[in-house]
Amino acid sequence: MQLTPHVMALIDLALTEDLGGGDITTDATIPDDSRSVAVVRAKEGLILAGLPVFAAVFNRLGDSVTFQDEKRDGDGVSKGDLITRVSGPTKTLLSGERTALNFLMRLCGIATLTNQCVQRIAGTETVVVDTRKTTPGWRALEKYAVRMGGGANHRFSLSDGVLIKDNHITAAGGITNAVTRARRRAPHTARIEVEVKNAAEIDEALEAGADILLLDNMTPEQAASSVSLVAGRAPVEVSGNMRPDTIGDYARIGVDFISMGFLTHSARSVDINMKIETP
Amino acid sequence: MQLTPHVMALIDLALTEDLGGGDITTDATIPDDSRSVAVVRAKEGLILAGLPVFAAVFNRLGDSVTFQDEKRDGDGVSKGDLITRVSGPTKTLLSGERTALNFLMRLCGIATLTNQCVQRIAGTETVVVDTRKTTPGWRALEKYAVRMGGGANHRFSLSDGVLIKDNHITAAGGITNAVTRARRRAPHTARIEVEVKNAAEIDEALEAGADILLLDNMTPEQAASSVSLVAGRAPVEVSGNMRPDTIGDYARIGVDFISMGFLTHSARSVDINMKIETP
Amino acid sequence: MQLTPHVMALIDLALTEDLGGGDITTDATIPDDSRSVAVVRAKEGLILAGLPVFAAVFNRLGDSVTFQDEKRDGDGVSKGDLITRVSGPTKTLLSGERTALNFLMRLCGIATLTNQCVQRIAGTETVVVDTRKTTPGWRALEKYAVRMGGGANHRFSLSDGVLIKDNHITAAGGITNAVTRARRRAPHTARIEVEVKNAAEIDEALEAGADILLLDNMTPEQAASSVSLVAGRAPVEVSGNMRPDTIGDYARIGVDFISMGFLTHSARSVDINMKIETP
Amino acid sequence: MQLTPHVMALIDLALTEDLGGGDITTDATIPDDSRSVAVVRAKEGLILAGLPVFAAVFNRLGDSVTFQDEKRDGDGVSKGDLITRVSGPTKTLLSGERTALNFLMRLCGIATLTNQCVQRIAGTETVVVDTRKTTPGWRALEKYAVRMGGGANHRFSLSDGVLIKDNHITAAGGITNAVTRARRRAPHTARIEVEVKNAAEIDEALEAGADILLLDNMTPEQAASSVSLVAGRAPVEVSGNMRPDTIGDYARIGVDFISMGFLTHSARSVDINMKIETP
Amino acid sequence: MQLTPHVMALIDLALTEDLGGGDITTDATIPDDSRSVAVVRAKEGLILAGLPVFAAVFNRLGDSVTFQDEKRDGDGVSKGDLITRVSGPTKTLLSGERTALNFLMRLCGIATLTNQCVQRIAGTETVVVDTRKTTPGWRALEKYAVRMGGGANHRFSLSDGVLIKDNHITAAGGITNAVTRARRRAPHTARIEVEVKNAAEIDEALEAGADILLLDNMTPEQAASSVSLVAGRAPVEVSGNMRPDTIGDYARIGVDFISMGFLTHSARSVDINMKIETP
Amino acid sequence: MQLTPHVMALIDLALTEDLGGGDITTDATIPDDSRSVAVVRAKEGLILAGLPVFAAVFNRLGDSVTFQDEKRDGDGVSKGDLITRVSGPTKTLLSGERTALNFLMRLCGIATLTNQCVQRIAGTETVVVDTRKTTPGWRALEKYAVRMGGGANHRFSLSDGVLIKDNHITAAGGITNAVTRARRRAPHTARIEVEVKNAAEIDEALEAGADILLLDNMTPEQAASSVSLVAGRAPVEVSGNMRPDTIGDYARIGVDFISMGFLTHSARSVDINMKIETP
Repeated sequence: MQLTPHVMALIDLALTEDLGGGDITTDATIPDDSRSVAVVRAKEGLILAGLPVFAAVFNRLGDSVTFQDEKRDGDGVSKGDLITRVSGPTKTLLSGERTALNFLMRLCGIATLTNQCVQRIAGTETVVVDTRKTTPGWRALEKYAVRMGGGANHRFSLSDGVLIKDNHITAAGGITNAVTRARRRAPHTARIEVEVKNAAEIDEALEAGADILLLDNMTPEQAASSVSLVAGRAPVEVSGNMRPDTIGDYARIGVDFISMGFLTHSARSVDINMKIETP
Repeated sequence: MQLTPHVMALIDLALTEDLGGGDITTDATIPDDSRSVAVVRAKEGLILAGLPVFAAVFNRLGDSVTFQDEKRDGDGVSKGDLITRVSGPTKTLLSGERTALNFLMRLCGIATLTNQCVQRIAGTETVVVDTRKTTPGWRALEKYAVRMGGGANHRFSLSDGVLIKDNHITAAGGITNAVTRARRRAPHTARIEVEVKNAAEIDEALEAGADILLLDNMTPEQAASSVSLVAGRAPVEVSGNMRPDTIGDYARIGVDFISMGFLTHSARSVDINMKIETP
Repeated sequence: MQLTPHVMALIDLALTEDLGGGDITTDATIPDDSRSVAVVRAKEGLILAGLPVFAAVFNRLGDSVTFQDEKRDGDGVSKGDLITRVSGPTKTLLSGERTALNFLMRLCGIATLTNQCVQRIAGTETVVVDTRKTTPGWRALEKYAVRMGGGANHRFSLSDGVLIKDNHITAAGGITNAVTRARRRAPHTARIEVEVKNAAEIDEALEAGADILLLDNMTPEQAASSVSLVAGRAPVEVSGNMRPDTIGDYARIGVDFISMGFLTHSARSVDINMKIETP
Repeated sequence: MQLTPHVMALIDLALTEDLGGGDITTDATIPDDSRSVAVVRAKEGLILAGLPVFAAVFNRLGDSVTFQDEKRDGDGVSKGDLITRVSGPTKTLLSGERTALNFLMRLCGIATLTNQCVQRIAGTETVVVDTRKTTPGWRALEKYAVRMGGGANHRFSLSDGVLIKDNHITAAGGITNAVTRARRRAPHTARIEVEVKNAAEIDEALEAGADILLLDNMTPEQAASSVSLVAGRAPVEVSGNMRPDTIGDYARIGVDFISMGFLTHSARSVDINMKIETP
Repeated sequence: MQLTPHVMALIDLALTEDLGGGDITTDATIPDDSRSVAVVRAKEGLILAGLPVFAAVFNRLGDSVTFQDEKRDGDGVSKGDLITRVSGPTKTLLSGERTALNFLMRLCGIATLTNQCVQRIAGTETVVVDTRKTTPGWRALEKYAVRMGGGANHRFSLSDGVLIKDNHITAAGGITNAVTRARRRAPHTARIEVEVKNAAEIDEALEAGADILLLDNMTPEQAASSVSLVAGRAPVEVSGNMRPDTIGDYARIGVDFISMGFLTHSARSVDINMKIETP
Repeated sequence: MQLTPHVMALIDLALTEDLGGGDITTDATIPDDSRSVAVVRAKEGLILAGLPVFAAVFNRLGDSVTFQDEKRDGDGVSKGDLITRVSGPTKTLLSGERTALNFLMRLCGIATLTNQCVQRIAGTETVVVDTRKTTPGWRALEKYAVRMGGGANHRFSLSDGVLIKDNHITAAGGITNAVTRARRRAPHTARIEVEVKNAAEIDEALEAGADILLLDNMTPEQAASSVSLVAGRAPVEVSGNMRPDTIGDYARIGVDFISMGFLTHSARSVDINMKIETP
């Protein structure tokens, strides 16, 4: 995980909103020179993602916090397992705890959910990918969590890949025009993916030179007949309300990619706690 | 909803991550001078929250986007209902759509979930409140969504209220010491809430002058006997894995507040879409 | 003192305005490899506040500046006393000196003034507290300085405590309505303080459930009769042009809190200098 | 007054610290659709400075606040005079009031104090100038206030003018060396000012080509004899603990500039209030 | 051109560095209420790029500056032609002039240079593309200028396209491994481009599934033989010290793309001036 | 070179635009625990400028990158010479390489070009100075590079020196008025430079008290006759399309300063590369 300036800016927003003018409970009750060790444990089974950002929260509050990691991002962690030990001034540990855990619990939640989806279609060639339906401000973190969970990433931003949807097709005057324009104007390093709704559009898109086809909101049956029609001429992605309990039906018919906004917009945080060890 | 500099900074992070070097699909396929109207519709029943931030995303991209709202934050919206109409340059509408919807869908998700919880305990005096387990960077937005859903807010940050937990009690040498110190050092405008685990702690906290008692991770039975013991001497809050299907048991026994991290850390986004209207 | 992202942002603004394109005097006259030790001394008696932010200014300019503190925040310092020694590149010491001292001199000024006020009412139970009349951008720093001087903090921000003033009362249709609404809508961790002007309002506020009463701009005589009327039913705060030479009159009549904007909006900087030691 | 990005960043810090998660009192007591007019009045005589930043605070919170100014920056305002009328949503007026007034009261305080100093030496040729002892983050605003009060500005930052002090002289190996180096390396648009302590240094500095002499911490008698010695060969500035009641002594002996850190580091805020008009 | 938060942040940096504490010349010589019209003219032939950012600089300084454009981005402009008229407060026009022109002159310089390169290979199928050798902070602006000049964009960032260079090949243990890993892990929307040095590498890369081949630092002869070898199996890009006077040799042999860092790292600004019209 | 908050903000913009959601090529092909040493070499002769900012780019990405410098800023470096060795995680080296080199190549380009200009007029008393025609956001860096190349700096910003141009003269009602106002209102530490076009203006400016004269767009012959006319009464600066091949003509006639926008607006980047060393 790269702690880019963007991620650091998000950490700053998070600390600013939680600290405000300071932690009045801790200031009132904890001596300035107290130091402690806290243990971070999983309270349910999970896939770990986000330890570097968890640590960065504490480091932003002071330079004397150290970590002794027992697990690494991408590891499976069982209920009760120790994830890491945090040592430092007690005040810093208590003031940073909630923000650091809020980051970690959400990212582990996404990694864990992704992994469950990947497990459901294990044995197929289909790849689970994320979407741009990420939490605003969090995209790089959430896409990292998807990778830690065993999923793959779709394009990162509007700058990365060409994805021609119905609005673009209408405005450009048809699939052929839209693909031709994109081929001419978009970076040659970007593939061109086109959303198609039926057999005629599949043929038109492929003839126009689409690199990838997106089947949006099709039933498994419709998707299966589309896959037959494509017949390997381009990779096929399905999307639209894909959920853990429905993706198996699509994987079985041989689509190449299932893109799931669900991974990021509907993941719940997993439960992790941090406790000061008593000496 | 106040669009504070903090919220604007989060919008900027979101647009930066999604726009990068620009929207290569839209740039390639949409004419510069095209203008459109898009309709935003609920694809499931929901409580609306976040229209001002939805609009702010587009406004940050250019000053010629206008809105014709059919609903207001806090309204219940049925599946298929029109929420708002967005008019402006087609390129701006398409480039801002995903980020604006990502904000709106998450905030409506929280408002809707909160409302479901509030409905479950309707008829009781118990109030559903949120926690600090919010998405880092999003606290003000998410707490606003909780209010729109009919819930109430717990303290906003570590600066707002005194909440003495076990770590503070241990460090301060007992409940009495911790409460006394907090009373002396914390702003007199802040109430002092103390986490208690049993009858002895309840009595000690009340005698020390605690304003509110927090029962953490108690069963409904344990909570009921605690409420009897408190006997109205202070408001009582329960917390710890409170979920929509369990809160009824706590409300029935007469606790004053049920605080639910679930409202913000486990809400899913609701489905809303935005479609360019064809002329 | 917590060096939050907010405080670091203020330091950045300060260095940006003072450094512009660089320190042309130092660049022209000081060799790149020169290192020095500077001593920081009080030029008048003072209460120390702000050493961490003083150090942070230099650290932001380079990582090789070290400090040997002789005093700690909160200490009383006599004229001529050594506060700290700063070692590092001569250029960094000279370029950061003014900004670092500007922070320190102002914060010590506030701590020193606060302490003088606290001394004036020593022996009473009354507590000196600050207000929100702080220097924009500096609130956390200035409230910290008040604590170092022996004062206490009023609410940090508009999010922290409910303070119902005449404008709110008018808009809400009376004290009872305003308090009732606040009780229902504000976080339960916040106390509700109400500004009252006469006996009738005192009674109405207390009956409505106000937690604290604020007597604004009363003479000591008026305040004394109000305190009698309250008769311990709630803590009483006085405010409005409280100055060092008038607070004694209010403390004697037994008010609980005297809030003084004067502590932060009218403090002068104390004199501290920093001199390069000649070898 | 230019509302530079730097000033806007300071406004953002100020609003962030005061608003936090929102104004819980106003949210609880004021209807969303209430609109009001507020009047801003001087509660003591003052020189006005800062109306544009006062307005910018409200504009940052929403675009529908308007102003009807009765006075302009630089005007003298008597106790009780109306300064401006503010119209807009009641919630915005109440939430922005404190921050906007905190800016205005401090800037008017500096302008007013400066003006008092200027009045004290009226009839002489001496000019009152400020220093770099400004509130960190506030330099452009405070130097503007000095101008509004009738004072002049010394250099804005370390990049603007060369001011060779004792530390530079020591490090460079004497006045002649220091001035020669500065002449060669500093921008040719910058004057070179040298701090001198006695007759020998005055002669050395002038011969080395100093453009301005700074007499630091001299008594009026010492300064008078220095001025005689300089005999018009360069402008002379005095500094060091210059206060309103001592500057007359220096002005009388014909120094060109009196620089006063006091103007900015020891100004108190003047009293201005803002009241919602009742209809 | 999209004025993203990133571009606005760059404008803010630029204004902060140029305005510092204000424009002391303009403040001293121009009346506050003076308004003017300025004309912006090309002093040499050029391709226009950057009018929106030119305008944004003035708008950031105040909201009452208006523009009457005679040309649009992408237009060819002859020496002496009027580009736009700027109307507003004289002080704002003079204070913003240099920063606004610095943006415009550089962007037009890049567009003009790009256009000259495109003209040199007119009649071939080869496309001139830019690189990531852009001015730090300016990438989106510079790539926009390349498009205005008739060139195309290579990938925007490290997130957009896979470009496997020698370091990656070495670390991955060969071309086949590197391409295989990239295919598995990189977003499926990204093409995979591989740098190849000889015939063996060309074959290995194509067999491994490379989508595009990059011939780095080849002579035209070497490139020609590589193009023959590829025989249309993938698009071919040449790079490495491509300059306006050498690109013709590469275009003639039928490469698909010539990528030129020269367009952005060695463009000179073109000459444009802005003059206040005398009434 | 001072790594001010402004420079760090520019580095953050640069990394944000290049890293986006991460380096997908490096992530796919380089093992997490790989560490490497990279060598940075000049590919042409150059004057070095910018090593601290080169290093700062890598340090911003992680704290475990170290440098072993073989050259220092200001050194002349021959083609093929080793500049520095960079050691650290291979992923960090590859992800930061382009941004770090983009900074270094541009700054060395400016230093090198400046040095060529300085060499051309070696033996004269004339000084080559830069202008405010710098790349927006880069001013401090570029002016530093000019100094490293042996040039001198003109004023840094609009706050630093008074430069009265034709627009100011017109608005102020003539040279005498403009100079008089500037003398009265601008900081006394700033020199006053006036643009003059002919003999009459030269005399008027000098009589009004101008400290420096600027001859804009004069031929060498015109400039020579102006210099004669000034006759040492003030330093003389020439500007306006000064280029490396024309400055000799101006230096020979004895002007004091030649200001060249060319140094910064038309410098090309020099070629420097960074290669991972194979073990």
